[in-house]
Amino acid sequence: MRAAAIEAAAELFGTAGYRGATFKDVASKLGMTAAGLTYYFPDKDALLAAVLHERDRPAVAEETAIPPSPSRSDITDHVMRILAENIAHPGLAELHCVLSAEATSAEHPAHEHFRDRYRRARELLTDTFAAATARGEIRPSVPPRTLATLLLGVLDGVQLQWLLDPEEIDMQATVRAFIADLLAPPDSP
Amino acid sequence: MRAAAIEAAAELFGTAGYRGATFKDVASKLGMTAAGLTYYFPDKDALLAAVLHERDRPAVAEETAIPPSPSRSDITDHVMRILAENIAHPGLAELHCVLSAEATSAEHPAHEHFRDRYRRARELLTDTFAAATARGEIRPSVPPRTLATLLLGVLDGVQLQWLLDPEEIDMQATVRAFIADLLAPPDSP
Repeated sequence: MRAAAIEAAAELFGTAGYRGATFKDVASKLGMTAAGLTYYFPDKDALLAAVLHERDRPAVAEETAIPPSPSRSDITDHVMRILAENIAHPGLAELHCVLSAEATSAEHPAHEHFRDRYRRARELLTDTFAAATARGEIRPSVPPRTLATLLLGVLDGVQLQWLLDPEEIDMQATVRAFIADLLAPPDSP
Repeated sequence: MRAAAIEAAAELFGTAGYRGATFKDVASKLGMTAAGLTYYFPDKDALLAAVLHERDRPAVAEETAIPPSPSRSDITDHVMRILAENIAHPGLAELHCVLSAEATSAEHPAHEHFRDRYRRARELLTDTFAAATARGEIRPSVPPRTLATLLLGVLDGVQLQWLLDPEEIDMQATVRAFIADLLAPPDSP
């Protein structure tokens, strides 16, 4: 029942947003009363925390699949795996899109979660790009931290366009062009 | 009162989202009853339509300020003006971020609005990049439509990170690096 409640909450938060969905909506989706659901989760914030925790699990598993000092082509492969996952589960992509946007408000209960998640992702990617630049695999004219911010921006921003218009946007080809071509050093073949 | 209602609705939609804010919330913010507000707007959808219409006005005015066949540096200048506007009015940036994310659901009342807005923006930018590429000002190895999708993605995605963490993200320097460096042709100085 815990797992079913997390799944129902994730689906509602992805469509109506955390703010647009009520605790009672989640209970109704499970065919139970709000009072019954409190046996598993005391309130909507506890559901949100469980959804965010659950959502982070595949990403953490994925991270261990990256080689220690990834090349540009390792980065491309890793990002393509994430995108394939999102294309297979558009509900998860929408959940991330809606919750991260809502969480820009400093008072949102997931504000620190998303701010810190992006900080960690930027740190990790900055180190990755710095090492790959030192090996001559990434164009050296833009600071690694700027490239890290841009790659995360491309992933979120292209995914937004894909969610709005899936027939029009080839998310994988677009992101691949960014990494394989725009990030390549000037003298690459 | 109409203008005040639009402003109040824009503020509430930007923080709580269209789905999280009620018609009554907007009325309360104006110190009136929901029945009183219906004199100006019949329902929440009418408020949303007015907010989206109002928000589009500055962008339309801006577009007329672009020269007919913009160079890469004209594009940079134009984008920097948009970013300066968003930095001066973070509430408008947040409104766009939250509403566009919510609108990824096909049932959202602004779904078509955002889908069509992005289609138009991609068309316009595709033409711009195609012309600039033909003049040798943009790297020719990536199709103009892909570059258009990437630039819109960078704008939204970097803005999301800036809204979450304004002290950490230099939105203007990051976007400038994308246009001035990553989009430059290989042989540019």
